[in-house]
Amino acid sequence: MDKPLVSVIMGSDSDLPVMKEALDLLKELEIPYEERIVSAHRTPERMYIFAKEAEERGVQVIIAGAGGAAHLPGMVASLSALPVIGVPIKSKNLQGVDSLHSIVQMPPGIPVATMAINGSKNAGIFAAKILGLKDPGILQRVKDYMEALEDQVEKKAKDLESMGYEAYLNKKF
Amino acid sequence: MDKPLVSVIMGSDSDLPVMKEALDLLKELEIPYEERIVSAHRTPERMYIFAKEAEERGVQVIIAGAGGAAHLPGMVASLSALPVIGVPIKSKNLQGVDSLHSIVQMPPGIPVATMAINGSKNAGIFAAKILGLKDPGILQRVKDYMEALEDQVEKKAKDLESMGYEAYLNKKF
Amino acid sequence: MDKPLVSVIMGSDSDLPVMKEALDLLKELEIPYEERIVSAHRTPERMYIFAKEAEERGVQVIIAGAGGAAHLPGMVASLSALPVIGVPIKSKNLQGVDSLHSIVQMPPGIPVATMAINGSKNAGIFAAKILGLKDPGILQRVKDYMEALEDQVEKKAKDLESMGYEAYLNKKF
Amino acid sequence: MDKPLVSVIMGSDSDLPVMKEALDLLKELEIPYEERIVSAHRTPERMYIFAKEAEERGVQVIIAGAGGAAHLPGMVASLSALPVIGVPIKSKNLQGVDSLHSIVQMPPGIPVATMAINGSKNAGIFAAKILGLKDPGILQRVKDYMEALEDQVEKKAKDLESMGYEAYLNKKF
Amino acid sequence: MDKPLVSVIMGSDSDLPVMKEALDLLKELEIPYEERIVSAHRTPERMYIFAKEAEERGVQVIIAGAGGAAHLPGMVASLSALPVIGVPIKSKNLQGVDSLHSIVQMPPGIPVATMAINGSKNAGIFAAKILGLKDPGILQRVKDYMEALEDQVEKKAKDLESMGYEAYLNKKF
Amino acid sequence: MDKPLVSVIMGSDSDLPVMKEALDLLKELEIPYEERIVSAHRTPERMYIFAKEAEERGVQVIIAGAGGAAHLPGMVASLSALPVIGVPIKSKNLQGVDSLHSIVQMPPGIPVATMAINGSKNAGIFAAKILGLKDPGILQRVKDYMEALEDQVEKKAKDLESMGYEAYLNKKF
Amino acid sequence: MDKPLVSVIMGSDSDLPVMKEALDLLKELEIPYEERIVSAHRTPERMYIFAKEAEERGVQVIIAGAGGAAHLPGMVASLSALPVIGVPIKSKNLQGVDSLHSIVQMPPGIPVATMAINGSKNAGIFAAKILGLKDPGILQRVKDYMEALEDQVEKKAKDLESMGYEAYLNKKF
Amino acid sequence: MDKPLVSVIMGSDSDLPVMKEALDLLKELEIPYEERIVSAHRTPERMYIFAKEAEERGVQVIIAGAGGAAHLPGMVASLSALPVIGVPIKSKNLQGVDSLHSIVQMPPGIPVATMAINGSKNAGIFAAKILGLKDPGILQRVKDYMEALEDQVEKKAKDLESMGYEAYLNKKF
Repeated sequence: MDKPLVSVIMGSDSDLPVMKEALDLLKELEIPYEERIVSAHRTPERMYIFAKEAEERGVQVIIAGAGGAAHLPGMVASLSALPVIGVPIKSKNLQGVDSLHSIVQMPPGIPVATMAINGSKNAGIFAAKILGLKDPGILQRVKDYMEALEDQVEKKAKDLESMGYEAYLNKKF
Repeated sequence: MDKPLVSVIMGSDSDLPVMKEALDLLKELEIPYEERIVSAHRTPERMYIFAKEAEERGVQVIIAGAGGAAHLPGMVASLSALPVIGVPIKSKNLQGVDSLHSIVQMPPGIPVATMAINGSKNAGIFAAKILGLKDPGILQRVKDYMEALEDQVEKKAKDLESMGYEAYLNKKF
Repeated sequence: MDKPLVSVIMGSDSDLPVMKEALDLLKELEIPYEERIVSAHRTPERMYIFAKEAEERGVQVIIAGAGGAAHLPGMVASLSALPVIGVPIKSKNLQGVDSLHSIVQMPPGIPVATMAINGSKNAGIFAAKILGLKDPGILQRVKDYMEALEDQVEKKAKDLESMGYEAYLNKKF
Repeated sequence: MDKPLVSVIMGSDSDLPVMKEALDLLKELEIPYEERIVSAHRTPERMYIFAKEAEERGVQVIIAGAGGAAHLPGMVASLSALPVIGVPIKSKNLQGVDSLHSIVQMPPGIPVATMAINGSKNAGIFAAKILGLKDPGILQRVKDYMEALEDQVEKKAKDLESMGYEAYLNKKF
Repeated sequence: MDKPLVSVIMGSDSDLPVMKEALDLLKELEIPYEERIVSAHRTPERMYIFAKEAEERGVQVIIAGAGGAAHLPGMVASLSALPVIGVPIKSKNLQGVDSLHSIVQMPPGIPVATMAINGSKNAGIFAAKILGLKDPGILQRVKDYMEALEDQVEKKAKDLESMGYEAYLNKKF
Repeated sequence: MDKPLVSVIMGSDSDLPVMKEALDLLKELEIPYEERIVSAHRTPERMYIFAKEAEERGVQVIIAGAGGAAHLPGMVASLSALPVIGVPIKSKNLQGVDSLHSIVQMPPGIPVATMAINGSKNAGIFAAKILGLKDPGILQRVKDYMEALEDQVEKKAKDLESMGYEAYLNKKF
Repeated sequence: MDKPLVSVIMGSDSDLPVMKEALDLLKELEIPYEERIVSAHRTPERMYIFAKEAEERGVQVIIAGAGGAAHLPGMVASLSALPVIGVPIKSKNLQGVDSLHSIVQMPPGIPVATMAINGSKNAGIFAAKILGLKDPGILQRVKDYMEALEDQVEKKAKDLESMGYEAYLNKKF
Repeated sequence: MDKPLVSVIMGSDSDLPVMKEALDLLKELEIPYEERIVSAHRTPERMYIFAKEAEERGVQVIIAGAGGAAHLPGMVASLSALPVIGVPIKSKNLQGVDSLHSIVQMPPGIPVATMAINGSKNAGIFAAKILGLKDPGILQRVKDYMEALEDQVEKKAKDLESMGYEAYLNKKF
């Protein structure tokens, strides 16, 4: 496999079912990636080393998922000049509002590009949009992906209009 | 001036005092930019044309600030393959929580890289981090900027330690 | 079927189980309707054409359901002079608070008549109230509907009073 | 003056500075209106009579502004078949979140078309959109109003582009 | 049965499983009660008559449960000089925050004594505390009830201390 | 002065400007009252004694105002069989949402009759409504008070209708 | 068993499944503890005695779990000079936001060291950190515990990296 | 000055006016302290070194104030076995709710003892309570401090009772 351009990190393996969508998307768009567990709180030194070395390892974009008092994306952003995309993981008690606040409300100087709660797939797409600025192949695949989304909606739209909502509901739900 | 690499758009000129920080930052880091008023709600056609043409005009990153039911960043992201950075503007009645929800909670397929409420300066820095992937000069200026931030904090830290908090407060506040 | 007076649109077919209640209500009140999938984010051009053509197709009222960063009702309202009724769909992570904020907090100039979260049935009734201003038959059916609601409550009220709460609970729950 | 088509009511005269914007808008669009203080809590009987008589007095649309535990719009909607537009007034302690919840979260059967917090001007525009379905003159004035909004934004947009943001800020703020 | 001193009303029979706890409590404390379905929105006239007649029928305290845009307690309080206790019913989409805001945030002049979300049992106890001011028998039963609560906790406390938490958990959960 | 029937307590003298409205109201309705500073947190023993002795001192209703982690109303309610009315004081950082949660969300068994944030006047009225059940004079004064409120609104309503909103605004604001 | 250094109290035995994690942790770190049910609301006198006697019984740290209008931690802190750690228990209707506000927003003078919602295990660890200041054995066990956490994460990290995310997900989820 | 037992750190010198209250309190209770600016985001390396060296420098308790996406307390807690007390600083746009969430919602294993928003004085008192477990002098000063608080409240209480609320308000406000 090629040297990873996108590093997908998460604070715990319990975040993996959510972060899987970013990884699947990168695979689908043929963008070399790596997956890492890096906990800001439980392995702060590992995080420090990861963030310091990512750029020289050739990583271009970091996607970081974390929940609760979610410090991983912000801390990595403070340690690296690479763009960091943060994914607030839905938390058990506050539905991810805590994760969202901890990731998006970064102070001036240290941005984290925040996605929706559990918006891991969009993190993958946004990484692809960034890489597409340098790589016309990736850009084209992003455009194809967006068009495919459009086609899917139009396909469903046509079905709904021709069948009527009751038949459609019976068939799909 | 060079062809703009970053387009900074906003829904209304009342957003300009906030968006000024992104523009100042881009100027400081010598990144060619443009400033535009584009309202998703009041000038929807202007927005369509803007979003459709931005890529071919050579724009690489779009920064969009909007408040309340803030549709501008998401709509532009749905119309362009360029990375879009959203800045939720603080609103009068809900403090920007409405702006934040309207920008960050995008559906799968159409990401907007969301900054903090009024986090316009960070939008500029994040745009610079993206452009730094292609342009070593910009990357270097981002790194210099981060180091300067560090130096400023360390300067203040040294002052506080040598003066003690009471003298420091008397002098600074 | 008659030319539709009410167009019920939604961002995704996953919204249909909620929007069904508006459609059922319109059917019950014998108001010609149509159902459409129109995504602001995934099919922005389709939305543009829909909104621009609705009035000349004879549509009088648009009901738009959307969830999360719900841009559909507001964007359609910005593109058409027809009254637009917005239905915030309950979202997975924020219970529809994000949908509500994105729909109700529209800026001056572009109103969306917002219903309760998942309040799709009320969107149908409100459309009927609007149409009733022109069509005495519809107005009468709205009044009959409201009276029937009253009768149902009074029927239950009588049952509860005559049976006592314990018997009532045993029978109904 | 012509018989009022729109009745603008509010719970207290302290709501008048906000509701003024609806009244100004109706005046501007030449729509006959009336203004009334009707308190659901302090004058419940007055409210009953108002709501019961509005339709036969020729009123077509009711705009009701209220704050806090804002019961006025919902109660009027339960007593009349006319469309009721609710304006949540910003409250002192909860910023209007309480007003918004009390107005928008109506149960099935009794819709209130809810505007943004303090969104009184939009209530006027929405009333005009409803009346425009019957009266081509009003419809035309709504369209002219929307176009004028668009022109204003485009005028500002042109100024900003030609002057640059710094000169624009100096001149306007 | 004696003439009811407490009237327990609710907007819909779907609120009865929650309001049952108030009714059970009143029964347990031997306080004559009645149960009524009275919807502010669907049966506004019935509500009006209920509120106007309650005092002369000998009712002393009204307990009103309602959810969402919960207008019942406040409207009854505006129509009667009797003390009204409001119970915010947990709502499907906003967990009862909307019900709480609609009940507790009453304007000056028209108080509603608000209980916790779904706090129907406490509404019964509070009614008993009010009636206890006139009726020493009821007051004594309130005191006995509070003491019994204390005894139950102390019984459990003793069990936990003697068994240790692990044995206790095994036995009880 | 007569033996106080209502005891108005507060956690700190900084709450007095808010609690003044309850005291003024009680004075206006000629209900004997007392005012006390009793802090649950800073004077827990004083609070125990106050709560334990209030009933035998002849107090019938306790009004307790508190802000932040507002424990005073709930603790007094746990120590006395008297009805306790809680007033959540607006707090500096969370606008009184914390005060509201700490007062209203009482567990089963220990009710506190919660008023609006800063709703001190309503606490006074509610106390009067309770006392009115025993004392026809107080009941009459409550009814007179409610009627006077109604008259005030009707007076303003008449002014607004006769003057029109613009003249009214000029005169009053 | 040794005299308890940490007293783990809770308002109800229904809190025990959450508080168990604190107890387990103390056991694991070999710190003598006791478990108690002490309800601020249902057994206020028991609470008073508990708080007054804890210090002289040799207790060094109190961990108090409570939900809803959670007064236990704050009241105990007001009655004892010992450090009190508060655990907001997740509540049924507001997810523990009410518990969090009632525990964390203590007034100046009476601190409660607040943990995350349901963060009972961390309460145990924090108690251990406090005791570790006096007892090098406990300090060492805290450090070992933190290192073991680090090792666990690193073990999982290695697995994920060597297996790839798809195999890892298949094996673990 | 003695070797500091408590280290008071903050992310920025703009937090100093809030953190001053902790420093003043420590001074008042004669506890050796130090004040430091340490930014998790702008000086991550400085933070690593600070956290790693604090214990061996003789620091016993760390108080960390931070606002917005407040990572400082949690990161220091992950790098040191010392007890860390977190103070959420009120933020401009979300009133400190973001700071609170980012500090209190720590994952299992890494506790931060969270104080109220801007609750810096309580952080100082809590540090003193911890140190009081080892140092009877500090414990005595904590008890004296709590008693002085009680005396102040009782002094004000006596004034209010003897003067009546109106005279008291005139004199104090």
